[in-house]
This record gives sequence, structure tokens and C-alpha cells, in this order.
Amino acid sequence: MNSALLTDLYQLTMLQVYHDRGMNGTAVFEFFVRKMPEHRNFLLAAGLEQVLDYLETLRFTEQELDWLAGCGRFGRGFVDSLAALRFTGDVAAMAEGTPFFPDEPILRVAAPLPQAQLVETRIINLLQFQVMVAAKAARVRLAAPGKLLVDFGLRRAHGAEAGLHSARASYLAGFDGSSNVQAGMLWDIPLYGTMAHSYIQAHDSEMQAFEDFARSHPKATTLLIDTYDTEGAARRLAPLARRLAGEGIAVNAVRIDSGDLAAHARNVRQILDTDGLPGVKVFASGNLDEYRVRDLVAGGAPIEGFGVGTRMNTSADAPYLDCAYKLQEYAGLPRRKRSEGKATWPGRKQVLRSVGQDGRLAGDLLTSADAAPAGEGLLREVMRGGNRLVPSPPLQEVRRHALAELARLPDALRGLAAAPAYPVTVAEPLRALAREVDGRTSPD
Amino acid sequence: MNSALLTDLYQLTMLQVYHDRGMNGTAVFEFFVRKMPEHRNFLLAAGLEQVLDYLETLRFTEQELDWLAGCGRFGRGFVDSLAALRFTGDVAAMAEGTPFFPDEPILRVAAPLPQAQLVETRIINLLQFQVMVAAKAARVRLAAPGKLLVDFGLRRAHGAEAGLHSARASYLAGFDGSSNVQAGMLWDIPLYGTMAHSYIQAHDSEMQAFEDFARSHPKATTLLIDTYDTEGAARRLAPLARRLAGEGIAVNAVRIDSGDLAAHARNVRQILDTDGLPGVKVFASGNLDEYRVRDLVAGGAPIEGFGVGTRMNTSADAPYLDCAYKLQEYAGLPRRKRSEGKATWPGRKQVLRSVGQDGRLAGDLLTSADAAPAGEGLLREVMRGGNRLVPSPPLQEVRRHALAELARLPDALRGLAAAPAYPVTVAEPLRALAREVDGRTSPD
Repeated sequence: MNSALLTDLYQLTMLQVYHDRGMNGTAVFEFFVRKMPEHRNFLLAAGLEQVLDYLETLRFTEQELDWLAGCGRFGRGFVDSLAALRFTGDVAAMAEGTPFFPDEPILRVAAPLPQAQLVETRIINLLQFQVMVAAKAARVRLAAPGKLLVDFGLRRAHGAEAGLHSARASYLAGFDGSSNVQAGMLWDIPLYGTMAHSYIQAHDSEMQAFEDFARSHPKATTLLIDTYDTEGAARRLAPLARRLAGEGIAVNAVRIDSGDLAAHARNVRQILDTDGLPGVKVFASGNLDEYRVRDLVAGGAPIEGFGVGTRMNTSADAPYLDCAYKLQEYAGLPRRKRSEGKATWPGRKQVLRSVGQDGRLAGDLLTSADAAPAGEGLLREVMRGGNRLVPSPPLQEVRRHALAELARLPDALRGLAAAPAYPVTVAEPLRALAREVDGRTSPD
Repeated sequence: MNSALLTDLYQLTMLQVYHDRGMNGTAVFEFFVRKMPEHRNFLLAAGLEQVLDYLETLRFTEQELDWLAGCGRFGRGFVDSLAALRFTGDVAAMAEGTPFFPDEPILRVAAPLPQAQLVETRIINLLQFQVMVAAKAARVRLAAPGKLLVDFGLRRAHGAEAGLHSARASYLAGFDGSSNVQAGMLWDIPLYGTMAHSYIQAHDSEMQAFEDFARSHPKATTLLIDTYDTEGAARRLAPLARRLAGEGIAVNAVRIDSGDLAAHARNVRQILDTDGLPGVKVFASGNLDEYRVRDLVAGGAPIEGFGVGTRMNTSADAPYLDCAYKLQEYAGLPRRKRSEGKATWPGRKQVLRSVGQDGRLAGDLLTSADAAPAGEGLLREVMRGGNRLVPSPPLQEVRRHALAELARLPDALRGLAAAPAYPVTVAEPLRALAREVDGRTSPD
């Protein structure tokens, strides 16, 4: 998935010019979000491990070079030069799982201009998606304290990588696991899942389907009970569950996937309790997002776990971020873009975060990296000369960090309703630098 | 991207039961969309080639089998049986590029139950996304007759595969090309793209940046003119363009990527015409979708091409489809799901399409495959016994088919406004079958 050709054509047409002109000075680019999407009070840094994997392995294959040479757009000398292209730059970044806000860079690349430019497309492609899903998943997590949360969204994620990365990003943000088997293998994410309606339908009798399943999976049986009649299935379950219990086979839970989830959960809970199955939990799924989960929790629906899919994995209410990877410095001089509505703060930046007496985040200062006290700030060097300084932390460690960070957010930001913007102050040294850059650069 | 583990855990837990019980009868599943999303009058079949690639190459690797054996959920006999699993079934499908409507299957899989079940997740994952993007891209195409349309969305697509498949789906639906280089190599999609703002910023002078670019790309130069001052750049362009023309270097176009695109385009057009550059075209990009493109076209903005990205590649106003891959028959008996709001029509189905005297689509009949006249209907057999019957057509041929099909849509459906639903009638033999199935299946 990390072909060097997974990029926009203009990266290569620009690189041809840089090659022709020998423009090989150090370029500094930063990735940041310009504007918070509606319905989000914070974002969560995510995807850094995949960016570093990409940078460490970046190279053009023989086949790709042949294709470029034959496509009629590029000179042979330039294409030949790409054979040796590796990423040899430095990267500083916020740790994955760290909350961040508009205009704050979460990744800074400093590398020879052609390298730093070429990787723009894939870096945005990797970071935007995981940031977006992690932020959405964190909202679900905050809306359902203590509940089991499982990512069910692979099928309606936008392709294979989106399915994998949304499993990763949601687990990172506090989900308990995923249905995505490959994600379980890749990142040791706990897996959940039992049966589909088709499984029930393939049997002539629903109860026989349940019994067969329990016998094949005696340790972990969750039964899907809404294929024909939810409450009816719950009622017929008790004799079967008692019979199986006698053989040491436990029915752990039932899943409801359609209809009025709160009403069905209440009815089913009562039936199970009355029938002597108080230990069988109710799990719900189907068109869930943070709002529906919050409403079910607030309404006291007796549901102990939620499968959340499509709306989270597509970040359905905000399916993209107004984000950018912008040139901030070239050949030692700070730069900025001034296009209408898209102006950027120039130079290498750092984010200094204040914590209040209560341990909660109190405000950030966006400043020039040079103006930040040495060793302070949220962006830390993670790659030097194209090599990781330390291995990326295991996802479980990232998840612990994210949960601790979510606990430090001000209460207003932890709610689902729109909160006043978290205070991010642009420091005077950075404002002065912008004025200086504007005075220097010229369109002529 | 086609790991056999790219699936939901429940597929494998069900397969364990099918293995234990010897449930290996032929299962028939169909993929269809339950409900049209808001802001869509039709959908477009897309993604079949990728589904067939997946089915033809489906297998578990040694590493995956070891992981499954060690994860503690499955019996050794079952895991061993997976080593030999191949897809040996039959597939019928609508041709890519064919418009379709709710409840109409666009893919039918008939295979031994474990195979047909296992592939559910990835089939939905592949088909949903391309269908969704193709439908969105077709709306842009219909909103901008005669205009150059280029996919610019790789960076904000949801991952690598989404970037590739949205390039494919938008080209299929009538776009002229993409910025995605890998998509160009994979499917021979025409590529477009020239320079980013960072390219201009890396130079001390915008005009020097333009000149360097033109000298490196003398045959195809599009200049991005909005980095500092759009109209100012247009004014300074004329002397440069004339000087370059004297050397046989042509400036083909300018691109505007920010601000009021209509106003800037008008100003720039006038400047270019006045300065003797009537042949230099204006190309626009930035937050475009079918509505903005339509408004720019309707307002007579002198723009000859559009770069459309994020909102199309994420299908931002409808980022998922209410779609399903459902069991319709097992072991020779038709089946249906009756869950609230999610009931399905049972059995193998066929779609018969009527065309009016004017050559436009007049209505569809959804019927049992058995009740359809032999050789008729939109679903045709494309795979038998796990092998394609013919190679998938080149994407260029699919695109021609799609454009011809879009031309046959009723005018109301070709507009962006919500049109009355296209008539899809459920035939009486299918209704009778549903009643028969309901009388037969039982939850007991």
C-alpha cells in the first residue's frame, strides 16, 4: 500500500524542476488542521507509526521507474535519479493519542526539498484518516463510560486500508476491540464477533442454530436474537441455556441488531432475568454513533456493550478534515502561504501546553520552535536522517496514553455538545516572523 | 490488500460451526442497496473487477493459518481445513457502469456456504465504496457537460485503497483523469497535475518559479496563480508567456485554488484576453463538488476544467450506503431475513429493465431468476467454478458503457435535485415466494 507512486502527479512534475535546477536545500513542512470540523471539540494525534513506516521504506521499484520513463512526461536523467531516492530527513511529531487543536502541527518533516515534497500526498492520506477516526471514536468512548465498545465497521469503511486503520485508530482512542481479524493479527487488538443473520437463516430452526454455535464455541457464546422475533428468541433461550449449562457450555450474551434497541434491550433483560439468566449480557449494534450510544446510556437501557461501525469508520458527520502539509521553511528561510482563507504561520513551530491546578489542560501556546525552551513542547524528534530514533510504541501503550489524555481534557470538551474553542494562543515571536516573511517574499 | 483475514471475526466463528456440522451446501448471497441515500437519484455499479480479483486469489497464507491456530478460538482441524479453502463458486453481476436502484442485486454469489459466507465483509467493503464514488462522480459529470474533470482527492481519501479506487470509480463514471499516479499506472487513467503552492513558495519569485516550470515541462504547463495575489500573477504572466512562446514553450492554462472562484476566473480571463493570451485556459479547484461545479457552470464562469477532490472521494454528503450482502437461498431452499426494517426478498433474483420509445430507461422489474426469460436481465454470469468466464473489460470500455448509460437516464434523474424514485416493481412470483418462505421457516 506504500508505493512511491501513490502520490499526486504534481509532486513528480515539481521534482523534475527541482532536479533540473538543483533545488535540493532543506525544506520544512508541517502537517496541521486548519479548522475544527463541526461536532468536534478536540482531535487526537494518530497515524504516526504508519507515516514513519512509509518514510523508512520509501523507494521506487524497477517497474515503477520503467513506467515513469515510458509515460512521456519526464526526462531520463530525472527518472534515473529517482532510483536512488530514499527519505533521509528528520521528523518531529506529537505522540499518538495526544489531543490537539487547529493550527497546531502534529508532524514536522525537515528533508531535502524533493523528498519532503514527494511524501506530502501519502502523509496527509495517512494522518487525516486516523486522526479523524480516533477523534470520533474518543467521543463514543467518552459517551459510554464503562461499556464494552467494539469496532464493527470494516465492511463499510472506504476500502481495505481504511478498515484496518479505523480498527487501529478506534482501539487507540479507547475502544475495547474490533471485529477486524487482520487488525487483530497486525496490532494485537482484541477481537469480537460471533454470528450473522445468514448463519441463523442457513438453519431451519433458530434454536438449533444457537445450540450448534454454543457447542462449537463453548467458552464464548454470544447469540444474535433478532433474525425473526427478538423477544420470542429470548424466551425460547432459557431452556436451551439451562440444558447447555448442565454440560458446562455457557451462553455469555445476546446481541440485538435492529428495531428500537432500548425497548428490545429492556424486554430482553426482563425475560432473561425472569427466566433465570441474569448473567447473560445484552449487546447492541446497528447504526450506532456517539449520539445514539449516549442516548441509550442516558436512558438507562440495560445494554453492556455496543458494536459501533459505519458512522465511526467513515466519520460520517465529518468525513474529512480541513488539513494541510505546508512548506514552512526552505533553504534556511521561513515561508508562508498567503492564499485567501488559507494563510499559514511560517517557520518551524512548537506547541507548549499548560496544565491547570486540577490537572486538566488549560491552554496551548503556538510558538516558533526556536522560541520554545529546549526540550519542551509536544513535538518531539522521532526520526533523524531517515531512521527512527526509537521503535514506535506498542498500540496498547498508545491507548493508555490516549485514555489518560482524554481524562485530562476540560469537561466541556469531553461532552458531545459544541464547547467554546480550547484556547490556543499564537505567540508574539511567531506573529513577528509572519510579518518579516511577508515583507521579504515577493510575487515578482 | 486482499488478505483472507481482512474479514470480520464472526465469519470465521460461523465457519467453525459449518466445519463441525458439515454444512457445505450451496448458499446464494446477493449484494444490494436497501435504500437510496439522500441526494442521489441513481447508483452506478462499480467494483466488480476488484471483487473477482479477490475471489480468484482468495487463500490463507501459512502465517495467517499459524496465527489462527494460535489465537485460541479455533480447533486445529478447522484451521487445517482453511489451508485448502479456495473460492469455487459462481458469480452473476451487473456490468460495471450500469445504473441501478434500491433492492436490485448487482452481484450474486452461489458457492458452498463457508466460501460464500467468508467473503461477505470484503465484498461489501469493495463494492460499497466504488458504487458510492461512481454515483457521486457521475453527478459531477452530469453537472458539467463538456468540461474537463479531474480527480484530485487522493490525499483526503480514506487510505491508500480508497485513493486508488476513487480514481478508478470517478474515471469510470466519466471523469477525464486523475492526479493519482499509481492509478494511472494500474488502469491507464490519464494523469493531470502540475504544481503546488509549496513549489511557488520554495522560490523567492513567483515568476521565476513559473519560468523554471515551463522550461522543465515545455509541452504541458499549467501555472498555479493564487499563492500570493491571483489577478496580480495573471497580469505579470503575459510578458513571460510571450517570451516563452518565442522559444516554443507554451503556457496552456492557469489554475485558481482559493477565494471566489467565479470572480477570480472572470478577472483572470479578462486579463489574459486583454494581454493577448486567449488560448490560456482557466482551471479551478478547491472544495468543489457537483453543486459548486453546477453553480460555476450555470453562472457562466469562464472555467474550462475542474479539479474535484475531497468531497467526491469521501462521498461527503453520503459517506456510506445502506447496503447488504444477504443469504437468499441455502441447500436449494430460498431464505429471507425478517428483522425489523431489514427484511429482504428471498431467492435468486433478476432485474429486467424497460426502455421507452425515446430510448430512456422506463422502469425495472425485480423478479425471481427462474421467472425471468432465459438470457434476459441485467445480471449476467461472470464467474463459474471460481474462474472468470471472460477477462474483465478495460476500464476505458467500462467508462464508455457508463457514459452511454448515463445518457439513457430520464432527465429528472440526471439532475442534481431529488427526483421521484425510478420505478422498480417487485414481480408477483417474487412476492409469492416471500410468502412461501415465511410460511416455512420457523424460529423454533
